[in-house]
Amino acid sequence: MDQSLSPAVGRISSSAIRELLALVDRPGVISLAGGLPSAGHFPVEQTIEAVGDLLRDDRGALQYSSTEGNAALREWIAAEHGVRPGQVLITHGSQQALDLVARVTLAEGDDVVLADPGYVGAIQALRLSGGRLVALPTDADGLGVDQLAERLRAGLRPRLVYVVPNFHNPTGATLSTARARQLATLADRFGFLIVEDDPYRELRFSGRGPAPFRTLTDAVVSIGTISKVLFPGLRVGWMVAPEWLAPSLALVKQAMDLHTSTLAQRIALHLLTGPDFLTDHIAVLRDHYQSQSAVLMAALEKSFGAELEINRPDGGMFLWGRLRRPGMDTAALLPGAIDRGVAYVPGGAFSVTAPHTDSLRLSFATVAPDDLVEGAGRLAEALSDRPVGLRRPA
Amino acid sequence: MDQSLSPAVGRISSSAIRELLALVDRPGVISLAGGLPSAGHFPVEQTIEAVGDLLRDDRGALQYSSTEGNAALREWIAAEHGVRPGQVLITHGSQQALDLVARVTLAEGDDVVLADPGYVGAIQALRLSGGRLVALPTDADGLGVDQLAERLRAGLRPRLVYVVPNFHNPTGATLSTARARQLATLADRFGFLIVEDDPYRELRFSGRGPAPFRTLTDAVVSIGTISKVLFPGLRVGWMVAPEWLAPSLALVKQAMDLHTSTLAQRIALHLLTGPDFLTDHIAVLRDHYQSQSAVLMAALEKSFGAELEINRPDGGMFLWGRLRRPGMDTAALLPGAIDRGVAYVPGGAFSVTAPHTDSLRLSFATVAPDDLVEGAGRLAEALSDRPVGLRRPA
Repeated sequence: MDQSLSPAVGRISSSAIRELLALVDRPGVISLAGGLPSAGHFPVEQTIEAVGDLLRDDRGALQYSSTEGNAALREWIAAEHGVRPGQVLITHGSQQALDLVARVTLAEGDDVVLADPGYVGAIQALRLSGGRLVALPTDADGLGVDQLAERLRAGLRPRLVYVVPNFHNPTGATLSTARARQLATLADRFGFLIVEDDPYRELRFSGRGPAPFRTLTDAVVSIGTISKVLFPGLRVGWMVAPEWLAPSLALVKQAMDLHTSTLAQRIALHLLTGPDFLTDHIAVLRDHYQSQSAVLMAALEKSFGAELEINRPDGGMFLWGRLRRPGMDTAALLPGAIDRGVAYVPGGAFSVTAPHTDSLRLSFATVAPDDLVEGAGRLAEALSDRPVGLRRPA
Repeated sequence: MDQSLSPAVGRISSSAIRELLALVDRPGVISLAGGLPSAGHFPVEQTIEAVGDLLRDDRGALQYSSTEGNAALREWIAAEHGVRPGQVLITHGSQQALDLVARVTLAEGDDVVLADPGYVGAIQALRLSGGRLVALPTDADGLGVDQLAERLRAGLRPRLVYVVPNFHNPTGATLSTARARQLATLADRFGFLIVEDDPYRELRFSGRGPAPFRTLTDAVVSIGTISKVLFPGLRVGWMVAPEWLAPSLALVKQAMDLHTSTLAQRIALHLLTGPDFLTDHIAVLRDHYQSQSAVLMAALEKSFGAELEINRPDGGMFLWGRLRRPGMDTAALLPGAIDRGVAYVPGGAFSVTAPHTDSLRLSFATVAPDDLVEGAGRLAEALSDRPVGLRRPA
């Protein structure tokens, strides 16, 4: 049998995090490796009620529906973003939005700029459609837009620049207002499209984020999702696109899966627009993540002292740490850490081109506070006592 | 702004049926044009109950889950198909399965064989990934496998052969057992992969279909869905792939949307495997579609006499008719038909290369019996009284 595959398949490899999570899901291991939102906060009763109301009302919630998505949901999103409903397309989670924008705008070999370390889902989607990834450094103020300006002056002409403005996964960094403005100006000048992926915006517990890119430029596709404010299991996301691009996105989405689950969209609409729910729910979530973040930050400072450099995030679900002792390899140290009962994601899992050997991502979203403290202690032991060169063979 | 798009976008155009359905959804028009399953038969109460049970039991139904899909659902499908669960991938409807198999196996310009007229969703998906469509004739016994054998002898080397074995949309034809065997033999000999798309299998009300291709060859990807036996609004489909192909499908699916809706999969599992439900439910559906089909067939025979040649389907949701009077153009006659209060899909909407000018697709799934009869009468008037050349200007 001919077992040849599309060249596209060779461009991507399975998420290392996904492989890792299978390993750490065992008793006694405190996992700071996960990327899941807090299931304890899922509005379960409201969802059960929503389904009953919806289905008793209208069997249409189980029928085929339009590729662009539920009209009322698109209107709600359009109002939130200050755009026309025709610019909104509902997607099967924000990952599909990433795939779709890449698939529709990229020709093979087009340059695509993003932060290194980068969001793994974006790396996969951008590569799948033939994007040639151009890695930029990132710091506490987010994507290195100055370095981008330099590359543009030197002749780089990217088709897309991918940016997570608030609490970037994995770095936790928020893009500064100055950099956001500069990036928008560069987009207008050099003709690239900004892909603004903003799943965590509502989970801000301190500071201020940049203005949404739509207020700065027309050259932007904004991607959103219910996954972090409601729950991810429905797979409801959206993209807001310029008028010239929206019809092509819908055309390709139609060939990809006809439309996003009708019922899932109706549930999302019900919860997002129901009276007296969303604002309070988000406030509770924010408090939870803020308190979790503070517990883990304090515990890490106590356990590591100056050995670990951490970006204190203003929101979201993740901390990014860098070990200050030279020669440490977080990937090599992971098996030992798991043996000690704690797991994290090594920085290399988020690599675009740089290795991030000395770095790691920690999630505070779902672990009980006592376990965050205990986990930080185990982590300090696991990462402090033996530089790579001195490890005994397993 | 640079408004260039991926070359992939230029390969497809929006479904003509979709544009059409927007036009015919108006009072007084009996639409035989739709492709929707009967909403009156959706198991609404069972679904409401399922959601309550599931979510009270386990918040995991709203959490992220694995790319391959729900383990119990994969096991159920594997048992149905007589394969290993590792060969099953849950998709966001069967349209995503079509896109995925094309995206993973096709290199640009690869030949893909299918029946002409063809299923519009498959035409779109296969073109999107760069497939060069090779149209085969089709008759009451389905895809013209003899003609395929001839083309293969002449040097054609397709990567995929797409086939709907039972009650093909739009022709309603079932592939004969002899042709299925011959196709499997050709697949083994010439190294192509059969894509077996079988959404209507359970909706058989007479005759016998061919054996599933997995019993005839290993060179097959089978695509299934709950859309026609439960409801389409959840978007839950699946593909059963050879062992060598399954991991690549999961890899690309991960980059496309992480995974199919966790809740939708759990609802599907609950309904498919619940006690005392599925078998009875399918029996009711079959009876309904059989009776609907018989009403429309009889009404058409009465209204058209010998003017319309119809394949009598053994199941599914569609009739395919061909007008016997020369020079008739079903696309040109449609506006007049809508004025008379009846709608259908002109054959040209399913064109791969042939025009199908004299043909049309009629759905009997959702229209009340009286309206089927009335619709057939209006149709005969609209299609019988004025050959194209004699139409007055509107």
